[in-house]
Amino acid sequence: MSHSYRLIVSCPDRVGIVARVSNFIADQRGSITEANQHSDLVTGRFFMRYEIRFDVDAPPIEQFRDTFQPIAETFGMDWSLHDSAQRKRIVLMVSRASHCLVDLLHRWNIGELDCEIPCVISNHDALRSLVEWHGIPFHHVPVAPDTKAAAFDETERLIGEVQADGVVLARYMQILPPGLCRRYAGRVINIHHSFLPSFAGAKPYHQAYDRGVKLIGATCHYVTEELDAGPIIEQDVHRITHCHTTEDLVRFGRDIERAVLARGLRWHLQDRVLIHGSKTVVFA
Amino acid sequence: MSHSYRLIVSCPDRVGIVARVSNFIADQRGSITEANQHSDLVTGRFFMRYEIRFDVDAPPIEQFRDTFQPIAETFGMDWSLHDSAQRKRIVLMVSRASHCLVDLLHRWNIGELDCEIPCVISNHDALRSLVEWHGIPFHHVPVAPDTKAAAFDETERLIGEVQADGVVLARYMQILPPGLCRRYAGRVINIHHSFLPSFAGAKPYHQAYDRGVKLIGATCHYVTEELDAGPIIEQDVHRITHCHTTEDLVRFGRDIERAVLARGLRWHLQDRVLIHGSKTVVFA
Amino acid sequence: MSHSYRLIVSCPDRVGIVARVSNFIADQRGSITEANQHSDLVTGRFFMRYEIRFDVDAPPIEQFRDTFQPIAETFGMDWSLHDSAQRKRIVLMVSRASHCLVDLLHRWNIGELDCEIPCVISNHDALRSLVEWHGIPFHHVPVAPDTKAAAFDETERLIGEVQADGVVLARYMQILPPGLCRRYAGRVINIHHSFLPSFAGAKPYHQAYDRGVKLIGATCHYVTEELDAGPIIEQDVHRITHCHTTEDLVRFGRDIERAVLARGLRWHLQDRVLIHGSKTVVFA
Amino acid sequence: MSHSYRLIVSCPDRVGIVARVSNFIADQRGSITEANQHSDLVTGRFFMRYEIRFDVDAPPIEQFRDTFQPIAETFGMDWSLHDSAQRKRIVLMVSRASHCLVDLLHRWNIGELDCEIPCVISNHDALRSLVEWHGIPFHHVPVAPDTKAAAFDETERLIGEVQADGVVLARYMQILPPGLCRRYAGRVINIHHSFLPSFAGAKPYHQAYDRGVKLIGATCHYVTEELDAGPIIEQDVHRITHCHTTEDLVRFGRDIERAVLARGLRWHLQDRVLIHGSKTVVFA
Repeated sequence: MSHSYRLIVSCPDRVGIVARVSNFIADQRGSITEANQHSDLVTGRFFMRYEIRFDVDAPPIEQFRDTFQPIAETFGMDWSLHDSAQRKRIVLMVSRASHCLVDLLHRWNIGELDCEIPCVISNHDALRSLVEWHGIPFHHVPVAPDTKAAAFDETERLIGEVQADGVVLARYMQILPPGLCRRYAGRVINIHHSFLPSFAGAKPYHQAYDRGVKLIGATCHYVTEELDAGPIIEQDVHRITHCHTTEDLVRFGRDIERAVLARGLRWHLQDRVLIHGSKTVVFA
Repeated sequence: MSHSYRLIVSCPDRVGIVARVSNFIADQRGSITEANQHSDLVTGRFFMRYEIRFDVDAPPIEQFRDTFQPIAETFGMDWSLHDSAQRKRIVLMVSRASHCLVDLLHRWNIGELDCEIPCVISNHDALRSLVEWHGIPFHHVPVAPDTKAAAFDETERLIGEVQADGVVLARYMQILPPGLCRRYAGRVINIHHSFLPSFAGAKPYHQAYDRGVKLIGATCHYVTEELDAGPIIEQDVHRITHCHTTEDLVRFGRDIERAVLARGLRWHLQDRVLIHGSKTVVFA
Repeated sequence: MSHSYRLIVSCPDRVGIVARVSNFIADQRGSITEANQHSDLVTGRFFMRYEIRFDVDAPPIEQFRDTFQPIAETFGMDWSLHDSAQRKRIVLMVSRASHCLVDLLHRWNIGELDCEIPCVISNHDALRSLVEWHGIPFHHVPVAPDTKAAAFDETERLIGEVQADGVVLARYMQILPPGLCRRYAGRVINIHHSFLPSFAGAKPYHQAYDRGVKLIGATCHYVTEELDAGPIIEQDVHRITHCHTTEDLVRFGRDIERAVLARGLRWHLQDRVLIHGSKTVVFA
Repeated sequence: MSHSYRLIVSCPDRVGIVARVSNFIADQRGSITEANQHSDLVTGRFFMRYEIRFDVDAPPIEQFRDTFQPIAETFGMDWSLHDSAQRKRIVLMVSRASHCLVDLLHRWNIGELDCEIPCVISNHDALRSLVEWHGIPFHHVPVAPDTKAAAFDETERLIGEVQADGVVLARYMQILPPGLCRRYAGRVINIHHSFLPSFAGAKPYHQAYDRGVKLIGATCHYVTEELDAGPIIEQDVHRITHCHTTEDLVRFGRDIERAVLARGLRWHLQDRVLIHGSKTVVFA
């Protein structure tokens, strides 16, 4: 049976990185089935993602890591190695809008999203039955102005309890506290219902309607402490005209949001998104 | 020979407008070959554009206007009537970048843009030969910090001299003075090289690069006194990735800019764009 | 309470139709809230769709029909009048693939698709639980080579029993018998997983892969006796590259299929699709 | 001064190719500034394109080739090495339609297309002045039914005389003879004005209009002896509605054609397009 690892690297660019890494992989008898590289000419940083298949016995992942460590040190690499068969554990958080949740659960159900969903957390109880129909535990954690701190403590406890690798805010309409953002930096994905940086904050479709733009959009990004300002993973747009009301914008928006979120999450699950300062490298 | 008029109306919405107007047209023996209507439910305003063909003798346009005037008064209409065969006179203004100019002149040359181009005005002399090859007068009006007022006086004199119906800023990199904006309100079209309202002002592609957006865009809009804030006519976007440098963004941008400007101008020439406050109704 | 009717007309084009119809509506004290017209210059046929609102007492629909009949006769109209509040009854037919069904049921559930779904019919039992979770009856009608005729008799009986206004083949992988196609002409909508007319028939994504196209698509069309040749309602495409396998094409395709089908069905439900020979007029 | 080579390889896939090649490049003190690889899992073939920069003295290209030859033999490579500074010589062929020609000449003029254009050949004299304004020789080679053979002999002589690396049929409405197709296999690019494989042959926009498709397209492909059947390089589409006449389709089509051709040609010039049987690998 074949086995597959993913090697993710970022480091200062210099001559010989690819040669050194690809030699190492050949020495381990691995085949590179997918290779992505990027040299950022402005920052001088190099990024790579290798999907490595072993048709015969793969070296145990810990042994692979230990053998690779000296190379990583030589080049000053930030790096990680993932077993492609090891599915990430992703907690979904939602409010009352169901479109992103239905879409993600469907994709997960038919095997399009390669992750575990240990639970769904919501500040409303409205989507319980949908979630439980999929055999996934549902936690209702209400968030009121005066119970916010306790609610987010409970939220973080639930996330920790299931040993989540990441969190997806699938139209969860609350702002996460800064501490949670920091502790899960690079692991919380949000979908914002505008084409950022336009129309950050509340009611973006109404803002778009008032400005009279001819395209509306949605943005999937990593959550940082600054609202709607984290590294963008994916965006898309939909054409509108003067005929369309804000209700139409909201309706079109649902389709863009779920598509953009699903693409962004899929890439994240496959370790295709590398954060580079306030931006991302996406080996889609 | 058939003859064609365009009737453009906006007024408070109420029952019976279409009946009254279409009866009038039938009485004049006109055929409605294209009809567009829009009721804005938020502002209660009604917009219409009728293309009216006369296969037999058309009433003279002044007589048509006089006969329609009482109807217009009844409904409190802002309205205009255009002879479709009467081409608008459009002055193009450019700086050094040629892509929008080449595109517009080509479309004009093959009959895609139904207008006269009485002259091209530029603050540089670089594009003279291209313009003159098309048989169009070229005026070089340099704009230096200390000669700005005089330069724009001369610019407005040239525009007035050719009795221009409108002006297109085809990547003219200077800000027009407020007086000129006011006197030609609704008749000056600009192409801005970003997806507004994101990245207004200078160097939008560099701003887009720094923010890490995944799509870049361009916006065609009417010029108002406030920079890059006028009613939007048309927008479009192009997908980019982390691979692309600012030079790539500028290159992709050229294609979006010229496409968006050409569409916006074409609609303007055909009286398809109705200004509605800070927005537009576009009967494309 | 306001009330709304939709008037759908097609007839030979001639002067005065709009005047006559809009007068009639004004006489009935109706407001035209949305008006669409199209004159086909090649065939000389005229199409219109009026959404008519009555703020005071609406005339009963039968009375409206009777009063309009003489006008319809004068102009030789094919016409229909619909009460906008009267939801069409649509039977969904599926096989094993769930993506279109999940999408349609979700949109229906949140009020985006203005129809009744009296039942779902499938030649497999796989999607029963999903359908029943939505509170909709599910009928398993297996189709084997030697039971085909009986199966389609039963299918048509079920469709008749619920008095369906239309049928949606939401990736139902069987070919309907000619008689059923004829009896429900203009009322059966199919989603084909290619950009027709390319790749009609079986395994279109494999055909697309083999040809090396750079975009794949899906097509929503009315079903006629000739396979994949009926009037096209809506199409869309998705960009692919040499990197993508047929599995990737199938995956991307699911997203295009469900989007295209949902748009096509929505327009059909709102009486926005008028069949014109082998083509459609879509007042989207 | 830095120097840059492009290494293009295709060969049977096996372990160690990347390691062997990247080692070789590191040994030559080259930096890989852009790397693209593709493993076709169906055919088992491997493709790569490396952009290699030398900041110090680059090895002469012949020496680089000789040193690489043994590696190429080991892996059974089809390969080529290009000096990135060496611009290809491309002959443009046109008929009467100017849109693709104007676009290509403009891009060439502002440095977007990295090639020489030694001459333009046309079966009409209409575009002579445009071409000559750009300082490029123009040859009028009329093609009449009874002079076809002689005309194509002359065409091929002209192409040979300027030592062209390739030919672009920029809406050249004649079919090239099989011999010419064979002798310039993989080096003649055509733009076809439909979304192939739909609507091959004559008058594709009319075919599209008659079929009632909702999107029209254009296809850039390598010319082979079989009409409109060569490997596809790039395609794109534009949305249309029932409102649009064939004249509108032709007009929209001009924009798609020139955009698709320009992208395809640019990739070809940068050795980004690798032919793989009847398909292409495009490292865009």
